[in-house]
Amino acid sequence: MILTVTLNAALDVTYGVDVLRPGTTHRVSTVVERAGGKGVNVARLLHALGEPVMATGLAGGATGARIRDLLAAAGVPEAFTSIDGESRRTVVVASDDGEPTGFWEPGPRVAAPEWSAFLERYRGLLADADVVALCGSLPPGVPDDGYATLIGLARSAGVATILDADGGPAYLGIRARPDVVKPNARELSTLHSIILRRRVQIGGVSEAREAAAAVRHLGAQTVVASLGAAGLLADTGDLVLHAAPPEVVTGNPTGAGDACVAALARGLRSGRPWPERLRDAVALSAAAVAAAVAGELSPIDYERLHASVSVTELP
Amino acid sequence: MILTVTLNAALDVTYGVDVLRPGTTHRVSTVVERAGGKGVNVARLLHALGEPVMATGLAGGATGARIRDLLAAAGVPEAFTSIDGESRRTVVVASDDGEPTGFWEPGPRVAAPEWSAFLERYRGLLADADVVALCGSLPPGVPDDGYATLIGLARSAGVATILDADGGPAYLGIRARPDVVKPNARELSTLHSIILRRRVQIGGVSEAREAAAAVRHLGAQTVVASLGAAGLLADTGDLVLHAAPPEVVTGNPTGAGDACVAALARGLRSGRPWPERLRDAVALSAAAVAAAVAGELSPIDYERLHASVSVTELP
Repeated sequence: MILTVTLNAALDVTYGVDVLRPGTTHRVSTVVERAGGKGVNVARLLHALGEPVMATGLAGGATGARIRDLLAAAGVPEAFTSIDGESRRTVVVASDDGEPTGFWEPGPRVAAPEWSAFLERYRGLLADADVVALCGSLPPGVPDDGYATLIGLARSAGVATILDADGGPAYLGIRARPDVVKPNARELSTLHSIILRRRVQIGGVSEAREAAAAVRHLGAQTVVASLGAAGLLADTGDLVLHAAPPEVVTGNPTGAGDACVAALARGLRSGRPWPERLRDAVALSAAAVAAAVAGELSPIDYERLHASVSVTELP
Repeated sequence: MILTVTLNAALDVTYGVDVLRPGTTHRVSTVVERAGGKGVNVARLLHALGEPVMATGLAGGATGARIRDLLAAAGVPEAFTSIDGESRRTVVVASDDGEPTGFWEPGPRVAAPEWSAFLERYRGLLADADVVALCGSLPPGVPDDGYATLIGLARSAGVATILDADGGPAYLGIRARPDVVKPNARELSTLHSIILRRRVQIGGVSEAREAAAAVRHLGAQTVVASLGAAGLLADTGDLVLHAAPPEVVTGNPTGAGDACVAALARGLRSGRPWPERLRDAVALSAAAVAAAVAGELSPIDYERLHASVSVTELP
């Protein structure tokens, strides 16, 4: 089973409006609610792909209850730990006249006993897990080395880990030696800047390769950097691989990172060779971008893309 | 006791952001939640003024539960009827760089047995009520003559009524002969247009006077029209009165209408002479406009304004 961890779960709400006019009042024509947060999205994708999965994390208040209800309605098994604080909502206003406009509420404050209760629950869930996917931001009150703790506990239990996080929590997590780290270009720039103690920016594949090597050296066994339209760059220690989509896929890039993590998590579980895992990750990401609804997959695109992803070993 | 009825209660959420940029994602710095809907706002104001009050209406789902919790936290007694649908939220984005931007969710669908259950509850609440304030829109599923039904039941129970509504439900409600109707200029234009079967627009006090007489003729015992900065025009049948604030009050006009209804409801209960009721209504409305937070009152402004409102009998 693949265990996904979402410490800052969200209720994603999309409001449909005709035209967004700042400074005026809008009657919302449609309201769509979905359980969200990166790990929750990964769990839903894995469930849709037929992988055995369990979603855990922290959820609280009426919003947390709604998140859990929506997961149950989607058939995704969940084992969230309840907290007193109210889980956050994200509101996206989708108008017919432009790009979506998003409003991200801050996460709830997590009390120390709630974090301890989660660790206890997590230890129990590891008994049935093959892989743990640790995804997204930490809400206030969870220690900065929270991911490091969770990675250490997983290793003690013999469970593989994949980390998709940002900033300090990602840096501290990597030092705890996860199996896979999946930064995007911006996150990889941040990590490389922290390591080098100077500001660096990832422009292309060669800079990403250098940064990935540094992140591997920091503690990650494999680094898979997602570079948008340029595809994936993986440094496994033995190999450096570049996987690129056969064409530029247009659509909604929101869910691409989560689809990539889902593919890498099931690749970790199956133990397939790295070129196959990357092919799968590129095809799933592209199918997420091409899907009509953010966070869904377009199955036809997935089959077609999977056959035509190029994977090259870099010298 | 003053009973307020809010059939389309809302959870009013205000998001604080630095700058609103359409097409981008914003981290919300502050989230403020308040129980809302016109009747709920009237109840909270009356409670703050020390009047005995009870808030009733329809509320459902997690949002409805939150509305009731927030009312309880504010010390406002409530007797809402639960419905299966999820009560609506209003999201207002307050940015430092311009006017607030609002998003109004549609109301929940109300099933026929839920409406019947509410009528039963309402009949019971009328036993302890002196005045009923019927405020705001009807959610889908409540019959268009819902306010007419509630006004008829109140009259049978010997309870005075004040109606603050719009369009068809207001028109049908007025035909059921409420004691007071409180339209604003736009609502008065709509009512007069329905009555005359041609489009009319209220420009000034003289047109408002003509429209108010027509609305009285339709069924209202007294019409009090709120005309923004021009103050209030009241047609009581015996008198036509114009009450104006001594100065232009600047601020947030959102809560002015609800403050006016609160003042008129307590005036109905006390039976004070109309000039005093109007003086109170103008001063409370102006204090609501001047308050730092929408829906609150500025007590200093209230005392000062109350002393200086002019009330004139029109010939």
